[in-house]
Amino acid sequence: MKTDQKVTSRGAGMERAQQRIGIIGTGAIGGFYGVMLARAGFDVHFLLRSEFAAVSEQGLHIDSDVHGALHLQPVQAYTDAAQMPPCDWLLVGAKTTSNPALAPLISRTCAAGGKVVLLQNGLGVEEALRPRLPGNLHLLGGLCFVCVNRTAPGVVRHQALGAVNLGYHSGPAQDALARQAIVESAVALFHAAGIESQAMLNLAQARWQKLVWNVPYNGLSVLLKASTTPLMADASSRALIQALMCEVVEGARACGHVLPVGYAEDLFAITEKMPDYWPSMYHDYAQGRPLELAAIYAEPLAQARQADCRLPRIEALYQSLAFIDRHNR
Amino acid sequence: MKTDQKVTSRGAGMERAQQRIGIIGTGAIGGFYGVMLARAGFDVHFLLRSEFAAVSEQGLHIDSDVHGALHLQPVQAYTDAAQMPPCDWLLVGAKTTSNPALAPLISRTCAAGGKVVLLQNGLGVEEALRPRLPGNLHLLGGLCFVCVNRTAPGVVRHQALGAVNLGYHSGPAQDALARQAIVESAVALFHAAGIESQAMLNLAQARWQKLVWNVPYNGLSVLLKASTTPLMADASSRALIQALMCEVVEGARACGHVLPVGYAEDLFAITEKMPDYWPSMYHDYAQGRPLELAAIYAEPLAQARQADCRLPRIEALYQSLAFIDRHNR
Repeated sequence: MKTDQKVTSRGAGMERAQQRIGIIGTGAIGGFYGVMLARAGFDVHFLLRSEFAAVSEQGLHIDSDVHGALHLQPVQAYTDAAQMPPCDWLLVGAKTTSNPALAPLISRTCAAGGKVVLLQNGLGVEEALRPRLPGNLHLLGGLCFVCVNRTAPGVVRHQALGAVNLGYHSGPAQDALARQAIVESAVALFHAAGIESQAMLNLAQARWQKLVWNVPYNGLSVLLKASTTPLMADASSRALIQALMCEVVEGARACGHVLPVGYAEDLFAITEKMPDYWPSMYHDYAQGRPLELAAIYAEPLAQARQADCRLPRIEALYQSLAFIDRHNR
Repeated sequence: MKTDQKVTSRGAGMERAQQRIGIIGTGAIGGFYGVMLARAGFDVHFLLRSEFAAVSEQGLHIDSDVHGALHLQPVQAYTDAAQMPPCDWLLVGAKTTSNPALAPLISRTCAAGGKVVLLQNGLGVEEALRPRLPGNLHLLGGLCFVCVNRTAPGVVRHQALGAVNLGYHSGPAQDALARQAIVESAVALFHAAGIESQAMLNLAQARWQKLVWNVPYNGLSVLLKASTTPLMADASSRALIQALMCEVVEGARACGHVLPVGYAEDLFAITEKMPDYWPSMYHDYAQGRPLELAAIYAEPLAQARQADCRLPRIEALYQSLAFIDRHNR
């Protein structure tokens, strides 16, 4: 039995408490990292919609197989971004499909010179958001290797992992050293919260690397209505996962990103050791929400194609998912 | 409203009545062609299993949008092949997955020097059965372009089309002329029943041609739980169907079969004009029966591969279907 750990931001060191963090999209990702950061003493503010009432009353619960049962209460919760104080950091854990709608809200909530971190998968997400943000904001991307999902309003189940790979996209930091300093400060934020994190020199490459996991598992979970354990137990789906991973590596290479040797094999082996997990795209599907197909499939396919590289299996998977998505609303 | 046409084999010309035809596997295909042949005056005998009682009592019903409502009663029906008289023709409309089990029964039921016609899709079906049959039997293949499905015991719904492409596989006819004569006599059989039919010089090529339809539509109906009309209405599934068709044409070419120019485009256009249709593989899936993956996917992929030709989209589709099939029993 896990003990419920009461989390408050009181009593934390002043330095951390002075860094104000806003969480935009308090779902599985935003909820998990937000509570972990609050637990470490940061001043965390959560923007919520449908779950505001539940979270205001009951707080945020993280049911973690790694960290135990965490309970943040009270929560600095808002339904209106205009009520939030200006934040030094904004962690965006919403779906990429809602980014355009979030841009004004991000611009309003982030302090001048603040840092916006998109904790989202896929390609082209910063490029789509950047023109809608003030030039004085730093824009970063974060790739989360974590098994979390939202099980009830204000309740997140955390099964395994947690690492965040961070990279700088664009903003006031013009030279490499200044950018690296910003990324390192983001890494330090997560480290302070007890979360593995590393700075990536090249955000585009970091995004391609994460696709090696997302392209096969997210899509196949919806196509085959299967979680990771049955997908890893069947010879046919294993071979298909490996072939899809190879195509992602090939696409990355065509776009100028040579992934580390054995990278796909390592992710495959890690998944094999993971507890049974339903990727986020399956939850979107099961709840009739739009699938994140543009960022995870369409954009990588388009970029590879522009580099004269066809990825036929990913293309077929994308076409199948697009059909399913359109019939699932 | 269609008028019920009472079908009996009485009163037909002696020549037709002397040709005895056995139907092995009285499902949609066997039932439809069997009744059409009986209606034309041939002496048709039906081997049945689970539907024997229903068919003995109520006869065979074809509810056809082309030919009206046909009713064959009484039916020369059997549950035991040993009770059937020796047949000059055996039409096998069972699933390819049951061929090995049917071999002894086919051998027993076919008259010496008779003709066995496999009305089945896919590659390698004659090759798998041939070693289990007596050498004095002619073995032919027939590819049916027909929209039929079994809606109740002894009831077949026929929505459109009907043509059968026939080719000689193996048997006592050694030279091309003798083989052609046998195939022409099979064509004449179907013509006499008012069914379009043509002799194919090369059965392997005829089988590849039919795969241009089966590979996309059978598989996608199961993968996407969709019949032909929605599959043809969506831009993504249309593009996927066309890409899969191209791969079949490519595989055929690698194996030495140059399909007629525009063949895939024609089948695509025909399907667009067809009434909404659920391919047979979907019915197999919906009823928890094994899918015909070996003949329709595994064997074509293996033959193409042996000719140094990879068909990545078909491979991905096959791997997905194999997963679904194993979880559907």
